[in-house]
Amino acid sequence: MKRSLNTDCKKLVGKEVLIKGWVYNIREHGKIVFADIRDRSGLIQVVDETGGLSGVKPEYVVEIEGKVKNRGERYINNKIETGKIEIEAKEVRVIETSRDLPFEINKPKLDVSLPVMLDYRNASLRNLRVGNIFKLQAVIVKAFREYMYKNDFTEIQVPTIVATATEGGSQVFEVDYFDRKAYMAQSPQFYKQIMVSIFERVFTLAHAYRAEPSVTTRHLTEYTGLDVEMGFIDNWMDVLLMADGLVKHIFSTVKKECGQILKDYEIDVPKTTKTTPVVKLTEAQQIIFDRTKRDIRGEPDMDPEGEREICKWAKEKHGSDLVFISHFPTKKRPWYTFPDPKIPDETLSFDLIGKGVEWITGGQRINNYDQLVTNIKKMGANPTDFEIPYLQAFKFGTPPEGGFCIGLERITQNILGLENVREACLYPRDMERIDIRLARIDEKKQK
Amino acid sequence: MKRSLNTDCKKLVGKEVLIKGWVYNIREHGKIVFADIRDRSGLIQVVDETGGLSGVKPEYVVEIEGKVKNRGERYINNKIETGKIEIEAKEVRVIETSRDLPFEINKPKLDVSLPVMLDYRNASLRNLRVGNIFKLQAVIVKAFREYMYKNDFTEIQVPTIVATATEGGSQVFEVDYFDRKAYMAQSPQFYKQIMVSIFERVFTLAHAYRAEPSVTTRHLTEYTGLDVEMGFIDNWMDVLLMADGLVKHIFSTVKKECGQILKDYEIDVPKTTKTTPVVKLTEAQQIIFDRTKRDIRGEPDMDPEGEREICKWAKEKHGSDLVFISHFPTKKRPWYTFPDPKIPDETLSFDLIGKGVEWITGGQRINNYDQLVTNIKKMGANPTDFEIPYLQAFKFGTPPEGGFCIGLERITQNILGLENVREACLYPRDMERIDIRLARIDEKKQK
Repeated sequence: MKRSLNTDCKKLVGKEVLIKGWVYNIREHGKIVFADIRDRSGLIQVVDETGGLSGVKPEYVVEIEGKVKNRGERYINNKIETGKIEIEAKEVRVIETSRDLPFEINKPKLDVSLPVMLDYRNASLRNLRVGNIFKLQAVIVKAFREYMYKNDFTEIQVPTIVATATEGGSQVFEVDYFDRKAYMAQSPQFYKQIMVSIFERVFTLAHAYRAEPSVTTRHLTEYTGLDVEMGFIDNWMDVLLMADGLVKHIFSTVKKECGQILKDYEIDVPKTTKTTPVVKLTEAQQIIFDRTKRDIRGEPDMDPEGEREICKWAKEKHGSDLVFISHFPTKKRPWYTFPDPKIPDETLSFDLIGKGVEWITGGQRINNYDQLVTNIKKMGANPTDFEIPYLQAFKFGTPPEGGFCIGLERITQNILGLENVREACLYPRDMERIDIRLARIDEKKQK
Repeated sequence: MKRSLNTDCKKLVGKEVLIKGWVYNIREHGKIVFADIRDRSGLIQVVDETGGLSGVKPEYVVEIEGKVKNRGERYINNKIETGKIEIEAKEVRVIETSRDLPFEINKPKLDVSLPVMLDYRNASLRNLRVGNIFKLQAVIVKAFREYMYKNDFTEIQVPTIVATATEGGSQVFEVDYFDRKAYMAQSPQFYKQIMVSIFERVFTLAHAYRAEPSVTTRHLTEYTGLDVEMGFIDNWMDVLLMADGLVKHIFSTVKKECGQILKDYEIDVPKTTKTTPVVKLTEAQQIIFDRTKRDIRGEPDMDPEGEREICKWAKEKHGSDLVFISHFPTKKRPWYTFPDPKIPDETLSFDLIGKGVEWITGGQRINNYDQLVTNIKKMGANPTDFEIPYLQAFKFGTPPEGGFCIGLERITQNILGLENVREACLYPRDMERIDIRLARIDEKKQK
């Protein structure tokens, strides 16, 4: 018999089916056993009186032949809905057994600390609520590509091993590259900029590496960037509007395809308006002062309290959960950021803030070779170190261009309102963990 | 005026347009200047009598306003076709200049060695023929995802920094991870297998790293894998058929969307048949012996000559450019490969061979914890080193599963018939190059 997916059984009421999956919940009531079977499509309840499910434990892999029956009402087992149908088992085959689980994984919400959740990642991911984070993440990635294709962007593959640590020397991982030192790229920035002169509009899903020597709720040492770069812009607003359109497309796709996941997390995607408000940093600081009398005017950046307050303002004044802050000071942005021709101390750059946190960072870049060389010298670095592959590209003609980056784990965290970015990463890396807790490496060495 | 793309001008004959792009070819004939302008859509010829293009050199970035004129015949400038229309310039604006190029980049075929091509990557990629390699590569990636989505696979993001070098100790890059050693993953193998127990069917575009201490035409130290893994298979043929369907979808998409590129490279995608032939390694060796009297029977693998001969056989006998070789010996495949229950010395594994070279490698994996532990011990390793995250996943129920990998650079190389895999990688890394030729690092140190 051909396998049916659990959700397809809805259309097969009265029919004999073969389903395959993992035992999620199992409850023995004498000779009757109830089990919820998980497959990639969802859960279904099986009622077994054949004895085939006796002694079977959670996460056993089973094949079940049986008849689909309509129950007319929705089943809620252990607070998890399993739909309006069930399967009456005719034959049960155990394909693989499972050892005892480290914790109960079939709860609506896992009741373990984050470190334990990560110590037993293959157990915790089997929890539907936890696994759904990454179903939603896959939808974000799909929506990202859809939008880029629609706007005529070409996907590129960018290397991650680099010869020179260029963006902030200390927070970079060194690699033993044969008899030399190399580095793990801190971003695909240089490569995506170079590629503008080939395809005008490029995007990449790139891993990037930051040797952040601290463990916070917002930093990973390896993360995934949704990186975009576009040439022949009229001005920096073209870049901002592309970012705005992308994030709105991601939200609407997630809302459409992950409605139940959002419901389970008791959250909705941010509310957007046709025109997302854009305020200069200095204006934002003035707005905050006017509203709260807290004076951060003259500061070179927004602080977290300021980000929350400007979001409140955007919501009250414009009905938008999102707000762009623009024109960050030249000294706070990377040296390749385009200065405002009218106010050279300010840059044509932006952050997208939503629900009090940062979602996107971007801006126009300098596309003139001489200006880049001047800026490299100004920060005390040697242009020769940037010559290949970066500066070389600007020796030939490069059009006005800009781009932005969305941290994939960060946007997943923000959409679901997760407390820690690690929850939004399948296998998060930080100072203290590469799958195993790193202390264990030391323990091993001591033996 | 709103910008028009070059290819859109076909529909705008008689209209005034604004185009933007790079000067590809330029030919001054007294007061008349002819220029081919490159943008992301292709080339268009501009005829300028305004003087605006005088003194302009290749790769200058320009904006041109003018009138679209129909010429009735196809233009071939410098052996490159620019279509049946041209633009009569009314106004030319130079946006950015270009320094002298290191070689002539506007030839139909670049006339420089591969090392020079890579030394000046941002120049060589501007050559249409070279750039088109990566347009085609982007189409391969798009087709890959389309096929995976259609077959209900979920895309996952897999980490590349790992705690233990597990697959072949010597050819792995070490990373200084704070005060410890970590490693760059040689493949996403373990993670994609683990994820089968979460989503059943997963795929990932993963960078992988091999410290190959040799410089060949077929190896990169950093490459991109199109990785697929699927659970609840009935047997290994399910995996093979998925790989077969994917590669055929890639071919048909490339043929449809990159017809002109294939024509320029004077090549067609491999010819496939409804049922791609599958032969066991031992059968293939017998076929080769029968055809050529060359005796490689009993060898544990195919040699390049054998791969070419079996491809000739598949073409003659089945009309197929592709052929699967299966049942490689247990000792030649990784320890997690599923042995044939009937002949335990052979594995349920396969390679896809086409045009004499390997395209895909895959097979069924062992999904039983005890069997994996036995195999790890058999090869003299310590199961503890594989416990997290890998073996842990098999302590809980894992269904029968398998998967495969396509090297993105390799398939790009094979489709276009490129001599060296480096040509199919935007920024190839090897022992001797990370963008710059690594010898130069030594030279710098000596100063």
